[in-house]
Amino acid sequence: MKNTLLLLITLLSLSGFGQAKRKQVHIEPINFSKVKITDSFWQPRLKNHAASTLSTCISQIESQTGRITNFENAGKRSGKHSGIFYDDSDVYKALEGIAYTLINNPDPKLEKTADNWIAKIESAQLKDGYINTYYTLTGLDKRWTDMDKHEMYCAGHLIEAGVAYYQATGKTKLLNVSKKMVDHMMSLFGEGKRHWVPGHEEIELALVKLYNVTNNKKYLDFSKWLLEERGHGHGTTGGNGEWDVKYYQDVKPVAELTDISGHAVRCMYLFSGMTDVEKLEEKSRYSNALNSVWDDVVFRNMYITGGIGSSKSNEGFTEDYDLPNLDAYSETCASVGMCYWNSRMNQSSGDAKYMDVLEKSLYNAVLAGVSITGDKFFYVNPLASKGQHHRKAWYGTACCPSQISRFIPSVGNYIYGKSDNSIWINLYIGSSVDITVGKNKVVLQQETNFPWNGDVKLVVKSLSSPLKKEMRLRIPSWCKKYTFSLNGTEIMNPVVENGYAVLKKEWKKGDEIRISMDMPVEVVKADDRVKENLGKRAIQRGPLVYCLEEIDNKTNFGFESVSENTKFETTFNPDLLGGIMEIKTVGDPKNVIKFIPYYSWDNREAGKMKVWIDYKNN
Amino acid sequence: MKNTLLLLITLLSLSGFGQAKRKQVHIEPINFSKVKITDSFWQPRLKNHAASTLSTCISQIESQTGRITNFENAGKRSGKHSGIFYDDSDVYKALEGIAYTLINNPDPKLEKTADNWIAKIESAQLKDGYINTYYTLTGLDKRWTDMDKHEMYCAGHLIEAGVAYYQATGKTKLLNVSKKMVDHMMSLFGEGKRHWVPGHEEIELALVKLYNVTNNKKYLDFSKWLLEERGHGHGTTGGNGEWDVKYYQDVKPVAELTDISGHAVRCMYLFSGMTDVEKLEEKSRYSNALNSVWDDVVFRNMYITGGIGSSKSNEGFTEDYDLPNLDAYSETCASVGMCYWNSRMNQSSGDAKYMDVLEKSLYNAVLAGVSITGDKFFYVNPLASKGQHHRKAWYGTACCPSQISRFIPSVGNYIYGKSDNSIWINLYIGSSVDITVGKNKVVLQQETNFPWNGDVKLVVKSLSSPLKKEMRLRIPSWCKKYTFSLNGTEIMNPVVENGYAVLKKEWKKGDEIRISMDMPVEVVKADDRVKENLGKRAIQRGPLVYCLEEIDNKTNFGFESVSENTKFETTFNPDLLGGIMEIKTVGDPKNVIKFIPYYSWDNREAGKMKVWIDYKNN
Repeated sequence: MKNTLLLLITLLSLSGFGQAKRKQVHIEPINFSKVKITDSFWQPRLKNHAASTLSTCISQIESQTGRITNFENAGKRSGKHSGIFYDDSDVYKALEGIAYTLINNPDPKLEKTADNWIAKIESAQLKDGYINTYYTLTGLDKRWTDMDKHEMYCAGHLIEAGVAYYQATGKTKLLNVSKKMVDHMMSLFGEGKRHWVPGHEEIELALVKLYNVTNNKKYLDFSKWLLEERGHGHGTTGGNGEWDVKYYQDVKPVAELTDISGHAVRCMYLFSGMTDVEKLEEKSRYSNALNSVWDDVVFRNMYITGGIGSSKSNEGFTEDYDLPNLDAYSETCASVGMCYWNSRMNQSSGDAKYMDVLEKSLYNAVLAGVSITGDKFFYVNPLASKGQHHRKAWYGTACCPSQISRFIPSVGNYIYGKSDNSIWINLYIGSSVDITVGKNKVVLQQETNFPWNGDVKLVVKSLSSPLKKEMRLRIPSWCKKYTFSLNGTEIMNPVVENGYAVLKKEWKKGDEIRISMDMPVEVVKADDRVKENLGKRAIQRGPLVYCLEEIDNKTNFGFESVSENTKFETTFNPDLLGGIMEIKTVGDPKNVIKFIPYYSWDNREAGKMKVWIDYKNN
Repeated sequence: MKNTLLLLITLLSLSGFGQAKRKQVHIEPINFSKVKITDSFWQPRLKNHAASTLSTCISQIESQTGRITNFENAGKRSGKHSGIFYDDSDVYKALEGIAYTLINNPDPKLEKTADNWIAKIESAQLKDGYINTYYTLTGLDKRWTDMDKHEMYCAGHLIEAGVAYYQATGKTKLLNVSKKMVDHMMSLFGEGKRHWVPGHEEIELALVKLYNVTNNKKYLDFSKWLLEERGHGHGTTGGNGEWDVKYYQDVKPVAELTDISGHAVRCMYLFSGMTDVEKLEEKSRYSNALNSVWDDVVFRNMYITGGIGSSKSNEGFTEDYDLPNLDAYSETCASVGMCYWNSRMNQSSGDAKYMDVLEKSLYNAVLAGVSITGDKFFYVNPLASKGQHHRKAWYGTACCPSQISRFIPSVGNYIYGKSDNSIWINLYIGSSVDITVGKNKVVLQQETNFPWNGDVKLVVKSLSSPLKKEMRLRIPSWCKKYTFSLNGTEIMNPVVENGYAVLKKEWKKGDEIRISMDMPVEVVKADDRVKENLGKRAIQRGPLVYCLEEIDNKTNFGFESVSENTKFETTFNPDLLGGIMEIKTVGDPKNVIKFIPYYSWDNREAGKMKVWIDYKNN
């Protein structure tokens, strides 16, 4: 039987895929609207998001801050602007989050809130298409004079919200506002017109979204033009000479980038935009640069949590391997940005390494950004704390709460993909998915207790007709040992390409793939060049980085250590922190240390925390 | 004037000293009875010793344990033995401490206590000279059957007490008891008689003391015979086969030793005895072995505090560089043993490196063994604590309190020495000393605030006639920068030999040497092979190792770190811990760490403590 099965699984020759050029793979992500998440890890998070995160954001935006009032005032062309010049973007990001929530959870009341906001936004748009409450209320004579005042950044989020709300409701009002704003911008900037280097990228990837939904190539071209504007000395903050080309990713033309520098979130958005544009180009333009900066981020400038941007002073990158723990910045928005960028890199390469990084950022740095109840947020995500860090309901600069509000409901985007030859299973999250392959309507169902264990069942629930496609199932880089079985029979030595097990047959209803991934506790060493982690180790299990909190380790805190002989015990505790797999060291009861997943820290009393702990060589 | 002075200071040619063989130097230590300590660091400790330490020991020995009752019962040859088989030694060590105290502080009441004890001890001696309350009360048929039952160890302490009490009071009763016991032993053991390998060394160095006070060479010969008994397979615990040759320093003949192993205190006493015997021999017998094991202890098996014997299981040595902090054993008695042995090595070599180690052990590992008030003791001296360590008034095995009780009052022994050509100033402790050089009675006076700063004034207060001797003043190894002046004029480039500045002139009354030793805060790195201290540093200033206690560093404890840029601030706080120089880091007030001298830890509430802290490379 085993032999028969081996024959079923076609051994793909390397000529077909191993030498595939990046251009040859185009994975289309399956939109989260087609994905119903059913597991016990993410489903409660999505519920809390709808119940807590969104309502927290809405309450802050509507009542506790002046963000909506700014739009009302701008609509009246009178009154004061409150807050900071980029506060409009929080409203747009929350609207995007509302849109995503409405797709899976229709809610007339929530939709009415959104429609109300959108009406006020529309009223704030000037006749010439310009929309930005800050300049409208503080002096339109100053608009488009300072490239770091986030006018295009806000416009980008307006586009993303407009596209999302259109996809969620079919309503075009917000999309049209965004189009008018783009037309306004294109009337001023572009070939033969004024130069413009957006100080905070975002518009570039948004324009590609607008292109994808409208099919109007002018948006794609404008995005390309904006990307190409960088690195030619056009950047300026209005003549005061403080334009830091590193901070603004304006050192050189983006196609020539090799190293990452400057503001972390801006980098992620730039690279996402570049990857988007690159994907739609005939000739490779940015792939060398993207591969090079990806290596630079991942191998030299990323925390074990997948967080990036270690420095507070520039919210970004400093020297390679400068990754302090206590003072880590590791902004939540930047980690979300890592997910955005890495999913795009994966889609245009078919390489699982990008999903490995996405998974790392998602389960650690991103999830730590929001409390388990969904109503409190971290802006920075240190890997150690003296107890001075505590999530807050809101921040003056509220990018992170609003970023979480739009990202969490769309997490379904990252699970599945399809391409000409394959269906891609990227993340292991219990869910069912509708995938349309030509006229074939395929329903897959994934069952798993991930991330608590590595057993996954993937069933072909239904299809219109037998399906001749490879199933490509990601083998996470943390997984050293795994088995695959098909309809109850183990698949010996499945073909693995670019980190995916490739299973090929004519798929029929009821076909069942089972994956069993070993998920032992791992003791992880940092690169020796990260001076702060010399002589230290972190504890990881599957994709989850663990930490220890003072509340669980009062006696041992400050003296915690592991050695090569340390034994660990894992116990699922359904009553702690929303249900977590605890890790404890086994041995001398006086020296037992208890670890919890890093994402779950600071959900009890504020206290000391650390990820990297002493390693003793005995 | 400076030039003139340079001429006064004879430039010694290297042929005279640099090539000196060990045998050519015989430094005679100036006994503490000739030294009056007057400073503000040691004087209060000596007072506390007399007021607290001794009375604590006496109370424990007389009333709270059965140690004196054992002697009474042994005198009656009836009754039970209480405690452990080596408890007699605590009485002898306390008597030695009393004797030393009486020398500088005559006290009829204290002397009466001692006389009372001595009478009871005498009554416990059998007709054949044997004295040991354990065997007398539990069965004399078993005596001299188990070499690990400390019969000779107790006899050694009896000798030391007898010698000390004789020197202090002129009374010979206890000395005679000890002589009788030696005669008894010599009747059984020796050339052509029974073999005997004392499981716990001590008798060897004691016999040399007895030889020194009696001039009877048989004691020296018996000591040599006992040293030479080792390493020939004679050791036995009475036939049960559990004689661990490493634990008992019985691996090989002592002259062939290269590495240190086994029980730390036993090693120190053995090496002290070997150094004593070596010093009195015509031909060098043990110097290679002693130099080799000294290197092995100091460079591979010693804590930064000067503590030794890292392991609890054998109270001794394990692998090279195995120096755990939290589980450090570092027994107080072993650190006192380091002082005993290193002072002897110094006396027969004239090399300051031995005093460097002595100073290190004395000011850190030894002093930490006793509370500032003098009434509580540490048996083990860890370099880190979770708060589980707290000094006690007494221990079941009470070697450490009684060791402290005899060591502290004799600390004056280690300050001065004399040899044919020189007067040696080894430690900087404010004091005056009477030194007899032939018929010349010399009084030197030392003034200093050591260890709080490195300024020392040494004045020739009086002498019978001008003195033609070199003054050899130790330049501590921690001191990188120093100046010497003579009668107000700086000595440019003083000759330095074996770690001593050599000042030669005809000394006259009123001559004044001033030494100014820089004492900055030093950030010290451990050998990389000490795995537990990788990526860590310790803070040291002068001879003092510093530590941080939780009580002073509640917020930062567990996150304390220094870097190459850390600045330190030193402040003398007369009200804290008996008066200490505090060290604080300077900079971000949230990250200030406060250090106190290691010896002063655990004198407030029990809490966490550590010496080695994280080093950040930024």
